[in-house]
Amino acid sequence: MTTVIDRLKKGSVPENVVKAASIENISQELMIEGLIAGEIVLPNNVNREFQRPVAIGKGLRTKVNANIGTSSDFQDIDYELKKLQTALEAGADAVMDLSTAGNLDSIRSSMRSRCSVPLGTVPIYQAMVESQTTKGSMIDMTVDEIFAVIEKHAKSGVDFITVHSGITRDTVESLKRGTRVAEVVSRGGAMTVAWMLRHDKENPLYEYFDRLVGIAREYDVTLSLGDGMRPGCIADASDQVQFQELLTLGRLVEISKAENVQALVEGPGHMPFDQIESNVRLEKEICGGAPYYLLGPLVTDIAPGYDHITAAIGGTMAASKGADFLCYVTPREHLGLPTLEDVHDGVIVSRIAGHAADIVKGVPGASDWDLKMAKARKSLDWKAQQELAIDPAKARDSYEERKGTIAADACTMCSEFCAMKLISDYLEVDETPIC
Amino acid sequence: MTTVIDRLKKGSVPENVVKAASIENISQELMIEGLIAGEIVLPNNVNREFQRPVAIGKGLRTKVNANIGTSSDFQDIDYELKKLQTALEAGADAVMDLSTAGNLDSIRSSMRSRCSVPLGTVPIYQAMVESQTTKGSMIDMTVDEIFAVIEKHAKSGVDFITVHSGITRDTVESLKRGTRVAEVVSRGGAMTVAWMLRHDKENPLYEYFDRLVGIAREYDVTLSLGDGMRPGCIADASDQVQFQELLTLGRLVEISKAENVQALVEGPGHMPFDQIESNVRLEKEICGGAPYYLLGPLVTDIAPGYDHITAAIGGTMAASKGADFLCYVTPREHLGLPTLEDVHDGVIVSRIAGHAADIVKGVPGASDWDLKMAKARKSLDWKAQQELAIDPAKARDSYEERKGTIAADACTMCSEFCAMKLISDYLEVDETPIC
Repeated sequence: MTTVIDRLKKGSVPENVVKAASIENISQELMIEGLIAGEIVLPNNVNREFQRPVAIGKGLRTKVNANIGTSSDFQDIDYELKKLQTALEAGADAVMDLSTAGNLDSIRSSMRSRCSVPLGTVPIYQAMVESQTTKGSMIDMTVDEIFAVIEKHAKSGVDFITVHSGITRDTVESLKRGTRVAEVVSRGGAMTVAWMLRHDKENPLYEYFDRLVGIAREYDVTLSLGDGMRPGCIADASDQVQFQELLTLGRLVEISKAENVQALVEGPGHMPFDQIESNVRLEKEICGGAPYYLLGPLVTDIAPGYDHITAAIGGTMAASKGADFLCYVTPREHLGLPTLEDVHDGVIVSRIAGHAADIVKGVPGASDWDLKMAKARKSLDWKAQQELAIDPAKARDSYEERKGTIAADACTMCSEFCAMKLISDYLEVDETPIC
Repeated sequence: MTTVIDRLKKGSVPENVVKAASIENISQELMIEGLIAGEIVLPNNVNREFQRPVAIGKGLRTKVNANIGTSSDFQDIDYELKKLQTALEAGADAVMDLSTAGNLDSIRSSMRSRCSVPLGTVPIYQAMVESQTTKGSMIDMTVDEIFAVIEKHAKSGVDFITVHSGITRDTVESLKRGTRVAEVVSRGGAMTVAWMLRHDKENPLYEYFDRLVGIAREYDVTLSLGDGMRPGCIADASDQVQFQELLTLGRLVEISKAENVQALVEGPGHMPFDQIESNVRLEKEICGGAPYYLLGPLVTDIAPGYDHITAAIGGTMAASKGADFLCYVTPREHLGLPTLEDVHDGVIVSRIAGHAADIVKGVPGASDWDLKMAKARKSLDWKAQQELAIDPAKARDSYEERKGTIAADACTMCSEFCAMKLISDYLEVDETPIC
C-alpha cells in the first residue's frame, strides 16, 4: 500500500487532498506543501472514505477532538454512541474512542460506521484490558500481543492512533528521582511505565518503533505521538521529564516522515498560562513543525467542574501561538466519565477557544463570522444572532428564558435603555460604515 | 474631609490600609507606596467600614466584580438582593448596583447594608431614569441634576462610581465618521453621547471634572473612569475612538491624583486575543499605572450563552499582563438580565481567570492552592479535592453524579485503570518529592 504522502511525492494528488484544500479555503499547492513537509496531517485510513476529509495543521482552522468511550463503571454502548452523535452535532472535527470496558472491537466498529470525521484510538488500552481479562493483570501482555492489537485497530479503519513511544528507560529513571508531585497522569503513560518496570524492559513502542511505522504505513494511519509524561498539575509543568519525552518525540517524527507516515505530537496537560507560548514554539522547533495536539493546557488545578474552561483558556493561548488541534476537556474532567451534556459543552467550548485563536491566526473566514454577528447585534436582529451563534439552541433558549415585554426589540439586560437603540436614535453617521 | 491618600501622604496609616496589606500578604510599605502612586486603590467611602477592605492593583490578587441590579423587565428587588448574596458567596470582591428600574435609592440602600465588599454604581443611570420618569425623555436632565445624583450616591456610601468622563465632543465627531460596526455599546456611553447631541454641549462629566473630583474627595469615593467607547465587537477593537478616550482618561487620572482622589480605569470589551497584551500595557503607560478594570475582554463575538468563557479567556490574558480587576461577564450577556445561576457562574469563572493570572503574576499564595489540589489528586483524596475546589459544591455534585463502584478510590473516567493508582503500584520514587 502507499500512503497519501507517497502519492503526493510522486506527483499524484488524491481526492481527499483536493477536498481538504477546498474545505479550508487554501490552495491545493499550500495543502500539498504542508502535507509533504509534515506540517499538516490528513488522518484517513486506507479503508475509510470521507465526504469531508479533515486536515490538521499550519494555516488551517484549529480542529477539535472529542474523547468518548466506556469505562468499567459505565459500559452502556448505546449511550457512548449517543455521545458520538452529540460530539458530531456540536461540531467535533475528530473523535477518539477510549473505551476500556465492554466488547471493544464491537464498540470501535459501531463508532467507525457512525463517525463522519476521523476516528482515533489508543490501542494499548485494549491490550491492557485484554491482559487484565485473560491474565488477571493489566500489564502482562507480550510485545507481540501489543502489536497485534495495534494492527487490528489499523486494519479496522482507525484514522489515527495514540502511541506512547516517547517513554524510555531514561524517562523512568527520571521519574524515580521523585521531583514530580503527580508522576504520571496519562493512562497510557502509566500503563507503559508499569509494563516497563514489571518486565524490566524498554518500552516496546519505542524499541520497535519501526514495526509501528510499518503498520501505520500499510493502512496510512496517522501516528499521534502521545505525551505519557505530560504534567498533571501546575507544579510539574515544563520539567525535565516532560522535555525529555518531547526530544524523543522529535526524533520519532523524523523517522515517521522518512517513511512517509504522517505524525502529530500530543502535548500537555496542566501548565501556567505564561509557559504555554514557549511550549508551543519548542514543540514546533523540536518536532520539525509537526502539528501539535493539546489536551488543554489547563491553566490551573483548582477548578474541577470547570475544566472545560481552564482548558479553553490555555487552548486559546496555545492555538493562537500555533497549536493546531485541541482535544476537548469536559466539565467532568478529574471527576468522572462525561455525560452527554458534558460532551456537548466540551466540544462547544473547545471550538470557542479554537475560533478565538483562528481570528489571531488569520484563518480564512474566521473573523468574518464575528463581523456578521456584530452586524446582527447592531441591528438588534435576534433571529440572525441566534442563527450565527456557535450554539444556536443555547443562544435561543437563553434569550427566550429571560425575554421581556418593555422593549420588544432590545434584550432585558437594559430594556428601553439599550445602548444600541439609544445611539441609533441620536447619532447620525456621515456615511455607510466602511467595513 | 480627608481622603485615605491625604492621610497617607501626611504619614498617618488608616486601619483599612493596615488590614488590606495583611489580607494581601504584602508589607504595609508596599501597600502605602502603591496607594500613593495611584497603582493601587482601596475603594472605601468615608461613610463605610469594612471588616475586610478590598485593595485593587499592582502586586495584589486579581479582583472580581459582579454587576447586578434591576431592569424595567425584571424589577424584583428581593431577587436582586439574592443575586448580591449569590455573588458574595461565590467570592466576588466587589459588586456594582446597575439598577435602572424600581425605587433606585431604596435598592441601593438595601444593597449597601448587605454588601460586605466595596459597592459601586453608575450614577448617570439614575439621572437617566429620573429624566425619563419626570420629563418623558431619558436625556433631558440638566447638568445640576446629574451632579445632584452623583452627590447623592457618594453621600449614601457608595465606594466607587463609574463616570464616563473620557467622552468629549471630539469623540462624538470621531463616531460620526462611521468607521465602527457598533458605534457605542456602553449604556452610559450611549446616554452621554445622546445627551451631548441632544443639548449640543460638551460632556458635563468631562467639562466639570473638577466638580466630580470635589464630590469624590469629600466622601473618598474612588472614581472608576468608564470606557464609554469600548469596542463592542472584534472588528471595532483598538481603533481611533477607543484610544482617543483612553488618552483623555489618562489626563483625568492625573487630575484625580493631584487632588488625592483615587482612580481606576475601565477597559474593553471585545478584542482579538492578540491585542490584549498591548492594550493592557498602553493603559498602564498612559494612565500612570492606574489599576485597570476590564469587562472581558471577550475574544470573539460568536458565542452568546458562553460569554463568561469568552471573557475568562481574555481576562486571563489581560490579568496575566497586569490588569487588576475583572468585571464578570455572565453566560446571559448579550441575551438578557442574568439569573441567580448566571451570577454564580459569572463570578466563579472570572475568579478562575483571575487565579490563573495570579499564578503568572506570582501573587503570594496563588500557586500554593494549586499545589494542595495536586497533592490531593495524587493521593486520590476526594474529600480534600472537593474542599479545595474553587466551587466545592459543584465539584462534589459532579463527582457524586457519576460515582462508580468498580474502583472506589478512583473516579469513573478510568475506574480500575486509573493512572494514579497504576503508577503508585509500580513506581517507587527514590525519595520524598522535593516540592
